Amino acid sequence: MRPSNRQANELRQVRLTRNYTRHAEGSVLVEFGDTKVICTATVEENVPPFLKGKGQGWVTAEYGMLPRSTNSRMRREASQGKQSGRTQEIQRLIGRSLRAVVDLEKLGERQILVDCDVIQADGGTRTASITGAFVAISDAINGLIAAGKLTESPLKDHVAAISVGIFENSPVLDLDYPEDSACETDMNVVMTGSGDFVEIQGTAEGVPFSRAEMNQLLDLAEKGIKELIVLQKAALSQ
Amino acid sequence: MRPSNRQANELRQVRLTRNYTRHAEGSVLVEFGDTKVICTATVEENVPPFLKGKGQGWVTAEYGMLPRSTNSRMRREASQGKQSGRTQEIQRLIGRSLRAVVDLEKLGERQILVDCDVIQADGGTRTASITGAFVAISDAINGLIAAGKLTESPLKDHVAAISVGIFENSPVLDLDYPEDSACETDMNVVMTGSGDFVEIQGTAEGVPFSRAEMNQLLDLAEKGIKELIVLQKAALSQ
Amino acid sequence: MRPSNRQANELRQVRLTRNYTRHAEGSVLVEFGDTKVICTATVEENVPPFLKGKGQGWVTAEYGMLPRSTNSRMRREASQGKQSGRTQEIQRLIGRSLRAVVDLEKLGERQILVDCDVIQADGGTRTASITGAFVAISDAINGLIAAGKLTESPLKDHVAAISVGIFENSPVLDLDYPEDSACETDMNVVMTGSGDFVEIQGTAEGVPFSRAEMNQLLDLAEKGIKELIVLQKAALSQ
Amino acid sequence: MRPSNRQANELRQVRLTRNYTRHAEGSVLVEFGDTKVICTATVEENVPPFLKGKGQGWVTAEYGMLPRSTNSRMRREASQGKQSGRTQEIQRLIGRSLRAVVDLEKLGERQILVDCDVIQADGGTRTASITGAFVAISDAINGLIAAGKLTESPLKDHVAAISVGIFENSPVLDLDYPEDSACETDMNVVMTGSGDFVEIQGTAEGVPFSRAEMNQLLDLAEKGIKELIVLQKAALSQ
Amino acid sequence: MRPSNRQANELRQVRLTRNYTRHAEGSVLVEFGDTKVICTATVEENVPPFLKGKGQGWVTAEYGMLPRSTNSRMRREASQGKQSGRTQEIQRLIGRSLRAVVDLEKLGERQILVDCDVIQADGGTRTASITGAFVAISDAINGLIAAGKLTESPLKDHVAAISVGIFENSPVLDLDYPEDSACETDMNVVMTGSGDFVEIQGTAEGVPFSRAEMNQLLDLAEKGIKELIVLQKAALSQ
Amino acid sequence: MRPSNRQANELRQVRLTRNYTRHAEGSVLVEFGDTKVICTATVEENVPPFLKGKGQGWVTAEYGMLPRSTNSRMRREASQGKQSGRTQEIQRLIGRSLRAVVDLEKLGERQILVDCDVIQADGGTRTASITGAFVAISDAINGLIAAGKLTESPLKDHVAAISVGIFENSPVLDLDYPEDSACETDMNVVMTGSGDFVEIQGTAEGVPFSRAEMNQLLDLAEKGIKELIVLQKAALSQ
Repeated sequence: MRPSNRQANELRQVRLTRNYTRHAEGSVLVEFGDTKVICTATVEENVPPFLKGKGQGWVTAEYGMLPRSTNSRMRREASQGKQSGRTQEIQRLIGRSLRAVVDLEKLGERQILVDCDVIQADGGTRTASITGAFVAISDAINGLIAAGKLTESPLKDHVAAISVGIFENSPVLDLDYPEDSACETDMNVVMTGSGDFVEIQGTAEGVPFSRAEMNQLLDLAEKGIKELIVLQKAALSQ
Repeated sequence: MRPSNRQANELRQVRLTRNYTRHAEGSVLVEFGDTKVICTATVEENVPPFLKGKGQGWVTAEYGMLPRSTNSRMRREASQGKQSGRTQEIQRLIGRSLRAVVDLEKLGERQILVDCDVIQADGGTRTASITGAFVAISDAINGLIAAGKLTESPLKDHVAAISVGIFENSPVLDLDYPEDSACETDMNVVMTGSGDFVEIQGTAEGVPFSRAEMNQLLDLAEKGIKELIVLQKAALSQ
Repeated sequence: MRPSNRQANELRQVRLTRNYTRHAEGSVLVEFGDTKVICTATVEENVPPFLKGKGQGWVTAEYGMLPRSTNSRMRREASQGKQSGRTQEIQRLIGRSLRAVVDLEKLGERQILVDCDVIQADGGTRTASITGAFVAISDAINGLIAAGKLTESPLKDHVAAISVGIFENSPVLDLDYPEDSACETDMNVVMTGSGDFVEIQGTAEGVPFSRAEMNQLLDLAEKGIKELIVLQKAALSQ
Repeated sequence: MRPSNRQANELRQVRLTRNYTRHAEGSVLVEFGDTKVICTATVEENVPPFLKGKGQGWVTAEYGMLPRSTNSRMRREASQGKQSGRTQEIQRLIGRSLRAVVDLEKLGERQILVDCDVIQADGGTRTASITGAFVAISDAINGLIAAGKLTESPLKDHVAAISVGIFENSPVLDLDYPEDSACETDMNVVMTGSGDFVEIQGTAEGVPFSRAEMNQLLDLAEKGIKELIVLQKAALSQ
Repeated sequence: MRPSNRQANELRQVRLTRNYTRHAEGSVLVEFGDTKVICTATVEENVPPFLKGKGQGWVTAEYGMLPRSTNSRMRREASQGKQSGRTQEIQRLIGRSLRAVVDLEKLGERQILVDCDVIQADGGTRTASITGAFVAISDAINGLIAAGKLTESPLKDHVAAISVGIFENSPVLDLDYPEDSACETDMNVVMTGSGDFVEIQGTAEGVPFSRAEMNQLLDLAEKGIKELIVLQKAALSQ
Repeated sequence: MRPSNRQANELRQVRLTRNYTRHAEGSVLVEFGDTKVICTATVEENVPPFLKGKGQGWVTAEYGMLPRSTNSRMRREASQGKQSGRTQEIQRLIGRSLRAVVDLEKLGERQILVDCDVIQADGGTRTASITGAFVAISDAINGLIAAGKLTESPLKDHVAAISVGIFENSPVLDLDYPEDSACETDMNVVMTGSGDFVEIQGTAEGVPFSRAEMNQLLDLAEKGIKELIVLQKAALSQ
């Protein structure tokens, strides 16, 4: 039995609210149950130095948590003077996941900067971030098309992410915080709309996991991500 | 005529939403029109080193803006490795304003850390922060009383804040961003429920201001803060 | 009775020594009683990046205290790796105060960097800094005129600053350290030679202050600043 | 055909040289072909603050590259003042991998700090680091047993790591730099001696990868890691 | 001919002004011609962590330059967020030089922190700092004796320092800035009152120097330091 | 008797292994007994900003120690976020020593960056670094000549370094760690092939040293450096 009474293969309630704040080119509040993340996409008409004059664009991401998005207050990274290793790991993952579905040459010499800021955390903040960021980036790209700056979308596919893990010896989908903090194995899976993998990051927190367990986890992840992509499409068609 | 069509002495629509996120001891979304700030109050059963063993508590604040809370994206302070002078100035102001209405000895040897995070900015983020933070801290203190950790409230009074300024030669109340960026004089006023001043910070951005102008600005501020305190009381009584 | 036996409306002995060190374009030792600050003005024939090509100049300030300028030694900010919030607040205030009396377009595409370094502190370091920095900047500008780089002074007016506060229930002018550390309300006022306000920063350290008290404080400040400007003029005419 | 003429399922020549430097409790030079990493294990008779008094030990790792271990010189992280996101990601991975095979309670209240410093890089530095660090940590633990500080080894199993990837449409084992920089999918796999997974990190650099491809990659990784563990055992038995 | 018309073996005018600022236990303005450094000695009744409980004291130093103590403005180290290599080298030298003449066991479990802040630079700031710091530390120690905290002076000898160098092919004593920036060899020598060496730091800026030249330079340095120690004694006897 | 049983004027066994790693333009493992340092020389076809367009090149050095190169583990400077004062002092010394024998105009507008990384420390790491770095830089320059980028060597002479000190009242050459940590006086001497001094840095750790002692130390240093230069020539001729 899961603490939330969900079925093993059941997502939390997922909501994608577009135009959540008003300044960004794309702004989405993504909720995976009690996990809430504001994802904004900013378009800038320049590229980082290493891409100057290469005829292509760039997509990158930054991630943060409000200090009291968590059960006990975390120290504010800005006042500590650096981002933790965990933060950097997550924002690099978000950036790579998004770049996997963007044709950077079609994007042209501009960049999209995605900010994922967790305002309430209950497990799965990185997978919610990727799932919401895709919608934000879609809105930003649609804005470029509407403004005549792009004639064709550089988006090659959808991308979404979910966590899976072995909790009390059973594989479960979309771990919330009570499951995440107690689970033996935790895997984050990023997939495209066509069902291929962009990232797999599996970690045995306690007992190492077998290949059979991994296959069960991937089955769950595939199911969950398909559902997330349906929800992304529904949100974008509103 | 103000860009928002407001009267010179008219506040923007102000909303105070309690219990906005679920982990903090006090959590308030404060909205001054399009300016939106999440204020959380965290209670920790310890005090900073300089107060150890002195029989009193502490109240302090941190402030941040999401990178795309503004019209053009600001660099994330956590990734830059430091808080700007502006950020530090604002969080010091919020902390002082709150301490002015808290009896630190009655609070006992514990501290309340307030986090004010701007998710959408349209001028007046520091005054909204102070006004919302007071409600968050009230909830945190009520929680301590309910839990039997305090028998008596250490709150001595309400505190709220508003900006006033001279915009196109006229004194106006509660500047939004178009006014703030064009005004000649900008003053932030922090007052208690009893009508006394906690902080006055007036700056001539362009032309220095006369004492007569200052008196007009203070009249406006007093009016506005009285209205804010009525709204705080209404929010806290729900 | 004040600890220094001064009258409530009496400044400490103020001295402005020009050409105090030999390298800077303007170099002034300002003394407000036992508070001693070296103010230097450096002219650089460039502007910060955000002003490149805009046809105007810039004035900015930095502030520091020698570690043992105070009664107990403070940690050296350079070895700690950052400037405190207080330091940043003060140097931003000095910069804004000076810019209020400089016509930046007339200054041309160059900047004046003012350094205010406290060698001995006894309260009022920021107001002494502003008062002395004006003299240093005047010398630097006169040097530009003498060198034929400017034909007309970009200075629009004098600027000076003083602190006022409520000490043992009475409003007093120009707080020294014993008063400053014990006072209930502390206000720093920056005014021009024409008697208008550039900055007002009032803080209730303990009990909030009434509007009547604020008016008394401003009366004192106006008197003090008038005297300071007389002293600036005398120093500059030597 | 691979640039190195290796078979698709062929490791580079792997060497594990124990007692490579003389001060550390464990010191191993690990070579995966031209990739050379010094792994040292340091035993300290204390634990990090979050584990004080919990009756268990800790294992952690740091990673670095000599500036000219690579083809073009990288900036020295110590002089830049921070570790890159990549460095932090790798050292966190090494630490988790080692902890997966150490019984931290049996280790007692002490910590083992592993340093992995790359002196020459040709792809696979993180997998070489994990594979060599296991040998270094084994030596450090054997030293504790020999010194009578431990009566029983806290090591539960071996752990080793290898990279696999899809290079020119074919799955290959143990990517060297020319393969790594050109491959479409890159996966780092960490496994125990009993054949279970500790970590799987797969990334599609270009085209997302299918589940079938992932299975091929895991087959290769299992083969490679079995061979590495044979080599670890041989090294430790000398 | 030297730019200052001094003889090759002639010091600049040296002045040592005690009690220069009022808060520190020792406070000396040292002037070597136009080089002016404020040296303060602060006594703290504690020791750094590495000396806790070892029954001895510590002496350490920090060094800084006001940004415009030099001909062109240097960036403020506090705002840059770090001390330069040169600054650290100098403050380590000052600390070692002072410790060479202090019996740290006789000092007891307390530390003396010396701050040397250059307010005007014209070459030789480190040698002026050491020479002035000795007087400041002497005053601080005499204060401890007067207060009954020490019964016997922990000072074993005097210490002073001077620079020598080869300027236009001739050895000269006490280089000022025009000489220092043009000289081929620069040597800083620190000696005790008994005529022994504490530090010798010689650097060939251009052409390497011969042993014969070094001997000439040391002759000059010995002469200069003897004169400085006479001046220290005179200052301390006033 | 020395702990190593060496004669007072006897160097440790010195080895210079060229082409130690494969990427750098010059790569040397230098061993002074148990002290082992990897010295690499990197050629970059640019110069630092302060030399742009001046028609000359630059040579600079960085220094580091692997955390467990020493008997007890040192904290990693990259994870601490800054280089120690000692590290900066040493790398500045290495850079100056190398520049003393390079004709920077003949080098042309390019720079050589030398990295000296200590993999095992037993005293004398800075002198080993200078001695090995000269060989690395020679290889890099020979590569430039071989590639036709230079027609003539900018090397003016050899340079090498050794430590000398007074250990148990006797002057000794090439201190190892047991001697270095116990010696009263420690002197690092850098000389050219023609027998002139580039740097002398002598420090009395305990008792100040006399001029007679210094002369004895310099005699030893001259002898040692002559031997080192013979070894450099032998290594470079292989």
